[in-house]
Amino acid sequence: MNTADLGLPDPEEREAPSRKGGGEPGAPPGGNWGRVDVPSTALFTDHYELTMLQAALAAGTARRRSVFEVFTRRLPEGRRYGVLAGTGRVLDAVENFRFDEPMLRFLRDRRIVDATTLDWLAGYRFGGDIWGYPEGQVYFPGSPLLRVEGSFAECVLLETVILSILNHDSAIAAAASRMSSAAGDRPLIEMGARRTHELGAVAASRAAYVGGFTSTSDLAAGFRYDIPTVGTAAHAFTLLHDTETDAFRAQVDSLGRGTTLLIDTYDVAEAVRHAVQVAGDGLGAVRIDSGDLLLVAHRVRQQLDDLGATDTRIVVTSDLDEYAIASLAAAPVDAYGVGTQLVTGSGHPTCSMVYKLVARAESADPAAPLVPVAKKALGGKTSLGGRKWAARRLDADGVAEAEVVGTGAVPPGLADRQLLVELVKGGRVVAREPLDAVRDRHAAARANLPLSATQLSRGEPVIPTEYV
Amino acid sequence: MNTADLGLPDPEEREAPSRKGGGEPGAPPGGNWGRVDVPSTALFTDHYELTMLQAALAAGTARRRSVFEVFTRRLPEGRRYGVLAGTGRVLDAVENFRFDEPMLRFLRDRRIVDATTLDWLAGYRFGGDIWGYPEGQVYFPGSPLLRVEGSFAECVLLETVILSILNHDSAIAAAASRMSSAAGDRPLIEMGARRTHELGAVAASRAAYVGGFTSTSDLAAGFRYDIPTVGTAAHAFTLLHDTETDAFRAQVDSLGRGTTLLIDTYDVAEAVRHAVQVAGDGLGAVRIDSGDLLLVAHRVRQQLDDLGATDTRIVVTSDLDEYAIASLAAAPVDAYGVGTQLVTGSGHPTCSMVYKLVARAESADPAAPLVPVAKKALGGKTSLGGRKWAARRLDADGVAEAEVVGTGAVPPGLADRQLLVELVKGGRVVAREPLDAVRDRHAAARANLPLSATQLSRGEPVIPTEYV
Repeated sequence: MNTADLGLPDPEEREAPSRKGGGEPGAPPGGNWGRVDVPSTALFTDHYELTMLQAALAAGTARRRSVFEVFTRRLPEGRRYGVLAGTGRVLDAVENFRFDEPMLRFLRDRRIVDATTLDWLAGYRFGGDIWGYPEGQVYFPGSPLLRVEGSFAECVLLETVILSILNHDSAIAAAASRMSSAAGDRPLIEMGARRTHELGAVAASRAAYVGGFTSTSDLAAGFRYDIPTVGTAAHAFTLLHDTETDAFRAQVDSLGRGTTLLIDTYDVAEAVRHAVQVAGDGLGAVRIDSGDLLLVAHRVRQQLDDLGATDTRIVVTSDLDEYAIASLAAAPVDAYGVGTQLVTGSGHPTCSMVYKLVARAESADPAAPLVPVAKKALGGKTSLGGRKWAARRLDADGVAEAEVVGTGAVPPGLADRQLLVELVKGGRVVAREPLDAVRDRHAAARANLPLSATQLSRGEPVIPTEYV
Repeated sequence: MNTADLGLPDPEEREAPSRKGGGEPGAPPGGNWGRVDVPSTALFTDHYELTMLQAALAAGTARRRSVFEVFTRRLPEGRRYGVLAGTGRVLDAVENFRFDEPMLRFLRDRRIVDATTLDWLAGYRFGGDIWGYPEGQVYFPGSPLLRVEGSFAECVLLETVILSILNHDSAIAAAASRMSSAAGDRPLIEMGARRTHELGAVAASRAAYVGGFTSTSDLAAGFRYDIPTVGTAAHAFTLLHDTETDAFRAQVDSLGRGTTLLIDTYDVAEAVRHAVQVAGDGLGAVRIDSGDLLLVAHRVRQQLDDLGATDTRIVVTSDLDEYAIASLAAAPVDAYGVGTQLVTGSGHPTCSMVYKLVARAESADPAAPLVPVAKKALGGKTSLGGRKWAARRLDADGVAEAEVVGTGAVPPGLADRQLLVELVKGGRVVAREPLDAVRDRHAAARANLPLSATQLSRGEPVIPTEYV
């Protein structure tokens, strides 16, 4: 990568950054890749959603007004806060949730639902309302992250795709946020595409950007979400050439001396010498991908400085996680590349968000009052019924001190601290926003938590959830 | 779900199974969803693949004949064997790896590569050869799982997408295989769509089926891969209705008494009574989704039997993994539904497969001899150079006793035990196969391992890898 892409000031202005970040919304840059990956999101749905629909249509209960909420009963063990990501993707998925003819034929041929239900599905468009925490916001156990309201029929169908997106993207964003805390001002490059599903990787890049990453190696993420893309070189490139010097020369000749040379294919000290011989002291950066990074980074920094390459940066990669990043805080490292641990959520590859019916009308009459409902069987999986609001209470210094969740009237002191915003109104998406705004929101929300939020050690949620 | 869908004999033949499984290859059943999720897979590629290409084109080394191999240096800690999955998806991805005009415009606008490289990319089609372990086969550290051969330029570009697919799908298949071992003859239902990326979930269903799962809840996986889909009901369905009995009646009236009723929304014993009252002793199945499954399953079985519902099956779900499944072996359970732990690889959501240059020609001359190459820096990431063959040696009883990997001539005794098969010849896919064949291959390969392979406890790879 050129150092400009690392997000660091470039002493020689060798090259302007080749792209800016986070240009959602608007048409995808390429134009041929829509807001969703497939023509319709309607089959990202569990079989039982459709059979429940069929039974409810037949029983006359499908039209009962219903409120579903997405929340999680707990954070992953030891985590201090959660990060909501994926809301923008949810809005696109809801908008594109239509049963086209091939899908209907599939459902008919496999006898998954009856003819009445197929007819109903053929006309399906979500026409209800969605409120939720704005994307990038932090959350805690019980936070009502998304509230979907409409007929039972139109809402129940969305369960699976909403949870898929939020559970995946929020897991990545939470890991990214911890890593970006640990990295401080140093840029973080998302390099995990090869470690996860090819389209999961694109969503992971997006979530990582929300969580504070600077750039991605994944071209599809650049194409789709306008996230800055960067690259260095692989060992294969060095091995392709007859000597390491040949490889470095080929790279520098073509990409300029602002490029990043990979220095651990053979002997690191030799490689640093070759690198500066070829590129001079204006070499952009070197990458270290193996060994004791702390030790090697110090040695390489010393050697680069001795060779006069004092502006040459050091990028480290190699199975980094937030702990490894933190342990390198005092090392002469200028940027981190993170792969596996980012896209697998650093030990927590999914969240435990659920989509629960919390209230429904007494009858199909549109004017029928809502009744709070909740599962009551023993075994820990109980929920709080009723349509909820949430607010974050601040202490005297303006720091978050509690997540307050309630079902009744909002206490006056919390009215202007409410967290849910309107996202979809009568089936129409009303809250698209650029990804950079989401990223900024996350940084602000995290900064507003007590300082212990960014401790990497295991602990309780950094603020309690209070039910009123 | 109807019990027919559980894969168990149905005493009353209430309903024939509504679909069969694994009908790959051929057009997707729906017809509107191609072999890959997006118009082209070419941007599932790390930035550096393209900049390395640019530098190699300029240096004249891009046309050197090259051999890349996919392998892993180790299995996830404690695992006895790996399961290769995703090869079929890799073949589709390679075939659809084309840079279309919007993608080229993106690369040009962002100045990711120069004009010469863009011209080269515009004409890109992989024209080389790919050999590999057949999908579903088991593997061990060092197994050469895929071998990609052609010019450096055409091979290096495929690294990211190949690794994305194989690392993801193989992680899921490995977990699925352990779960299906633990489940024995009892059907396993994949229910994890809501816990992972929406398209990752479809690939996960496919990999789970390869690993021995019976069916999936994910309609997109049924649509795409013809995997049988099944469903039960959610707590929301019970809560929608005024009473549990109303809900059960609505479900049975619409879906037949062969359906599966969810019995843990309120009180389990009450629910069993309501269920049999509504459906009679011909009720298909009940599902338990919380509590102490061992205890509750015994109680429910006793109660069902006492009520005369001796043919009613019990399906359990609720954060199951292979250990929980094994612990229920003696419980009166007829089927397992598995979600989170399946789609997150049961603790190992990715594999550590790498794509390494192992040999390349001395020059761009098509007749130039190949030179084995390998990274040599310290730090553990060393590789064995050279184009490799692999064979599984059997003991006198025909049981696998070693994975033999070599670079020279294949010893005569192993010639007919070779593992790699031809997948792509001169850019043309030559080895598509139905998913059921892959699933059967996995079952056979696993059955051919020493018995300790299916022990769930942590241990070493069940056979050693020998390099000759």
